[in-house]
Amino acid sequence: MTDIGSIVAEIAAEMAQATDRGRVADYIAPLAGVDPAHFGLAVVTADGACHVAGDADMPFSIQSVSKVFTLTLALGRVGDRIWDRVGREPSGTSFNSIVQLESEQGVPRNPFINAGAIVVSDMILAGHQPREAIGEILRFVRGLAGDEAIYIDEAVARAEQETGFRNAALANYMRAFDNLNNPVDLTLGVYFHHCAIAMSCRQLALAGRYLMARGVNPETGKRVISPERARRINALMLTCGHYDGSGEFAFRVGLPGKSGVGGGILAIAPGHASIAVWSPGINTSGNSQLGMVALERLAQRTGWSVFDPVSI
Amino acid sequence: MTDIGSIVAEIAAEMAQATDRGRVADYIAPLAGVDPAHFGLAVVTADGACHVAGDADMPFSIQSVSKVFTLTLALGRVGDRIWDRVGREPSGTSFNSIVQLESEQGVPRNPFINAGAIVVSDMILAGHQPREAIGEILRFVRGLAGDEAIYIDEAVARAEQETGFRNAALANYMRAFDNLNNPVDLTLGVYFHHCAIAMSCRQLALAGRYLMARGVNPETGKRVISPERARRINALMLTCGHYDGSGEFAFRVGLPGKSGVGGGILAIAPGHASIAVWSPGINTSGNSQLGMVALERLAQRTGWSVFDPVSI
Amino acid sequence: MTDIGSIVAEIAAEMAQATDRGRVADYIAPLAGVDPAHFGLAVVTADGACHVAGDADMPFSIQSVSKVFTLTLALGRVGDRIWDRVGREPSGTSFNSIVQLESEQGVPRNPFINAGAIVVSDMILAGHQPREAIGEILRFVRGLAGDEAIYIDEAVARAEQETGFRNAALANYMRAFDNLNNPVDLTLGVYFHHCAIAMSCRQLALAGRYLMARGVNPETGKRVISPERARRINALMLTCGHYDGSGEFAFRVGLPGKSGVGGGILAIAPGHASIAVWSPGINTSGNSQLGMVALERLAQRTGWSVFDPVSI
Amino acid sequence: MTDIGSIVAEIAAEMAQATDRGRVADYIAPLAGVDPAHFGLAVVTADGACHVAGDADMPFSIQSVSKVFTLTLALGRVGDRIWDRVGREPSGTSFNSIVQLESEQGVPRNPFINAGAIVVSDMILAGHQPREAIGEILRFVRGLAGDEAIYIDEAVARAEQETGFRNAALANYMRAFDNLNNPVDLTLGVYFHHCAIAMSCRQLALAGRYLMARGVNPETGKRVISPERARRINALMLTCGHYDGSGEFAFRVGLPGKSGVGGGILAIAPGHASIAVWSPGINTSGNSQLGMVALERLAQRTGWSVFDPVSI
Repeated sequence: MTDIGSIVAEIAAEMAQATDRGRVADYIAPLAGVDPAHFGLAVVTADGACHVAGDADMPFSIQSVSKVFTLTLALGRVGDRIWDRVGREPSGTSFNSIVQLESEQGVPRNPFINAGAIVVSDMILAGHQPREAIGEILRFVRGLAGDEAIYIDEAVARAEQETGFRNAALANYMRAFDNLNNPVDLTLGVYFHHCAIAMSCRQLALAGRYLMARGVNPETGKRVISPERARRINALMLTCGHYDGSGEFAFRVGLPGKSGVGGGILAIAPGHASIAVWSPGINTSGNSQLGMVALERLAQRTGWSVFDPVSI
Repeated sequence: MTDIGSIVAEIAAEMAQATDRGRVADYIAPLAGVDPAHFGLAVVTADGACHVAGDADMPFSIQSVSKVFTLTLALGRVGDRIWDRVGREPSGTSFNSIVQLESEQGVPRNPFINAGAIVVSDMILAGHQPREAIGEILRFVRGLAGDEAIYIDEAVARAEQETGFRNAALANYMRAFDNLNNPVDLTLGVYFHHCAIAMSCRQLALAGRYLMARGVNPETGKRVISPERARRINALMLTCGHYDGSGEFAFRVGLPGKSGVGGGILAIAPGHASIAVWSPGINTSGNSQLGMVALERLAQRTGWSVFDPVSI
Repeated sequence: MTDIGSIVAEIAAEMAQATDRGRVADYIAPLAGVDPAHFGLAVVTADGACHVAGDADMPFSIQSVSKVFTLTLALGRVGDRIWDRVGREPSGTSFNSIVQLESEQGVPRNPFINAGAIVVSDMILAGHQPREAIGEILRFVRGLAGDEAIYIDEAVARAEQETGFRNAALANYMRAFDNLNNPVDLTLGVYFHHCAIAMSCRQLALAGRYLMARGVNPETGKRVISPERARRINALMLTCGHYDGSGEFAFRVGLPGKSGVGGGILAIAPGHASIAVWSPGINTSGNSQLGMVALERLAQRTGWSVFDPVSI
Repeated sequence: MTDIGSIVAEIAAEMAQATDRGRVADYIAPLAGVDPAHFGLAVVTADGACHVAGDADMPFSIQSVSKVFTLTLALGRVGDRIWDRVGREPSGTSFNSIVQLESEQGVPRNPFINAGAIVVSDMILAGHQPREAIGEILRFVRGLAGDEAIYIDEAVARAEQETGFRNAALANYMRAFDNLNNPVDLTLGVYFHHCAIAMSCRQLALAGRYLMARGVNPETGKRVISPERARRINALMLTCGHYDGSGEFAFRVGLPGKSGVGGGILAIAPGHASIAVWSPGINTSGNSQLGMVALERLAQRTGWSVFDPVSI
């Protein structure tokens, strides 16, 4: 049997040598200053072991990775009516594109592009105060990871609120099609805050365990979501989790994954592992450059792939 | 252990009662006359057993399902240079859309939309006579299925050649960007002929075995393609195999699959089964209406899903 | 010589009989209640005569017709640097489309689509208080018409501010590309207010006189704008003044014109007349249904056309 | 009164000094070899005088300028039913874009983009032999110019037939929507041949006289087309005659005009003049770089503008 710990350490060592590290996202000021030399990797396996390497305990801005958790929360709350307002198809365009909304009447293609996640935020907000909704999301993520230290980076949230004009455009546009129910500013407040959650690779891999374990948190034994929904979230991650690089990720890595412009990726090997990787530099599709390379190597060396019967 | 044979029979019986059967594709004359009441299902499992029900031995026009086989053939021939001329991303548009080609300079998004498959045909043609290329494809598919009775329906090929103006537009458009190397008519000749291959569900499920078995034909033990490429073809089928309904198929069925407008679908449960279903009526995305329902039920009852660790 | 007065009366009488009157715009609440039976026509000729018929003295919401005046004002203020931030090409899309902004980096195609007019508002605002900018626009229009009774309908402005989510999307989107300099809300405040200017056909035709008279207000003899700029504004009105119905308007009417969703149109027969027509029902391109018919007849009966040497 | 002859000579002298001459179209081989130093200008005024300068008697490939003549011919033949198959709106996209055809069901936006002109060719062909249709077009143009020496450059026609894949894509695409009635190859044959007509500036300006003279050939007194249709062709030239540079041309030159990638432009000052200019280098919109500059100066110095009452 493969020694996961050695593989994890090995990959971290290789990534430390990498020269083509992508570019750190610069449109959110507090992210622009992050050192591109960071690299962290954490793998939580089905037996509960947690293998880490590099900066695996350094918190980073998880950004769009948070959309996996808000989708899970909203599905539990709203159920399948969520799909009346958000689609389930890859977009074929970039994460913040507005073009598709015009031809498809304000219904975003999937819950992982910005527009879709804003609609999900609107469902979680549901007439309450943003503060309550944000608190609920944070509690949910802390519960998944079993770590109360997880926090929201207010400086990041504020920066997004002050400069997130494309997201404001998306939100207003959907409001025009009656696909937002709350005031635009409040919904965006929820969205910007959950994107500003800061987590380490270890915390993120722990938070993702329910997705490798048919919807159950293996530590607590508590059901987070039904097996069918866990399966479906994994399906959405595989087809839509990397924006217009999703096909490439499925092709090269072969695992469900969700990326964020902060350079984090959560990937799931169903039955085997919950994996979090972080390297701040991103590629032109908005996905972590080294994060993807690291996951490709991890998948090769462990044999994990949803498409490979030996792995599975 | 589940009794696959019973499940297959049960689903066929249920589908016989279905009233919403989609609409038979009418833009290819010989297909328009097919009786929408047909339904066939064949499941070849890892142990070599073949379970069939309904019209599982009646040949139908496999149409775009053939793209899985031409991609496999081209990968063996050309290798990864294929990806210089075709992408690996879901398109976010319909199977015969030309819009994306304009903004992306004649490079189709993936090998399963029409434009992408035409490029693959062009690679297989590679300066030879269309007759030779077509013969080679047919021999390849017969070999995969172990059945020399598989044939090309010349009436279908001819009808497409006479009326396939959108495909001719796609081919000419890519030629304008130097992404076809052979004369447009010849490349289209190859494309129209492989789309006109007629197979039964049984033959199709047999032909797909190498994709559940890491690239090896389990009957002959002969390697068709490397394990890595088998995995990657499955990944492409999952993200792009149902055009702009790929996300929906992954969400509901959770298996790699490739559909054709003739109403056939080939689906793969890696390590478990190669599955072919046929029901002629298609939905608005161009995928078999009942075929998808049948596969969803099959996946539920067998537990097969690439996203479910119990299955895998 | 033609008797303009009789033609004007005749057309108003014909329009009173029309049954296909289009649909009153309903997305701005106070406009939705306007009676579609209204029809007004005013023609101010080069000799200073003003011929009116129907409801020519009833104020209506001029909406986008105001964009002609804000463009004139901004050209006087900013000069040709305006064209660094707004294009001069027909858009080929509807008045509130956002698609083009994505591919063209936040630069609207012309100053008469919503996005373009918002940029023009931003130039007029230029760091001042919205109240001042709005006051300046109103004074400018009153001066052109020589009528201090022209006013801004605050109920309309407020309704747009509360429901103008698509315009808010456009503004935020351009802000994301740094093509707005002022806070989005303030710029939109200016935009919504100038769109809410209420004028009668008589007032509107009087205000447009400088465009038939090489940039000079013929009543006061005061130069409003240079002859070259007057010519160019007319050119923009002809190519872009009716959104995606501009070609049709040029084809059928043959005069520069600018429409508003309130059902008003300002048309210019250079050297001959400034014309205002109002009928609240609009067609699918957002232009007054009867307004266009009336102008087509007026052009035919007077012989006015920029394309006809007899007229000119 | 202005001395047109001197202005023409002056402009030609200025253009001889120009350094930024655009780039000669290189996608049609025989055009790629044309010397960019050429410049010709011919102005036929209402009094019948013809003022020329530079290479005004050197034949060049008129390319898309021919679309004005085929539209005139088709209007005479088919009448307003032509508009069932072609629109009258600016496209907002480049001359050979196929995107719009997908969303608008195979109906081109106007008769001056390639797709629209191919439909017009199809109407002229109308079941006859291409040879006959081509002959008819050539006779028509010779008659307009009163010059039997005008010819079709077969080398150009052949080159387009061999490499005009984008046009073949457009034609096949429209055929798929049943908006071509003849075999694609035959219709394209007519299209490629009329684009290959070779004319000098003098011949072109003479051929355009009917458009300045309300539809009558002033030399022969023969009516070519009704005054209303002459007006409307001028309107289409103004709104659509320079592809996605039409707004710019209207803004700067202020006259109806039609360009070709061979570097020719036909412009009309209704009641005043028919103007042809030729300079082989084109700009990014596909219009003659110096041709446009020359026309802008000509318009300024003569005062000709459809938007200026002094001119008119």
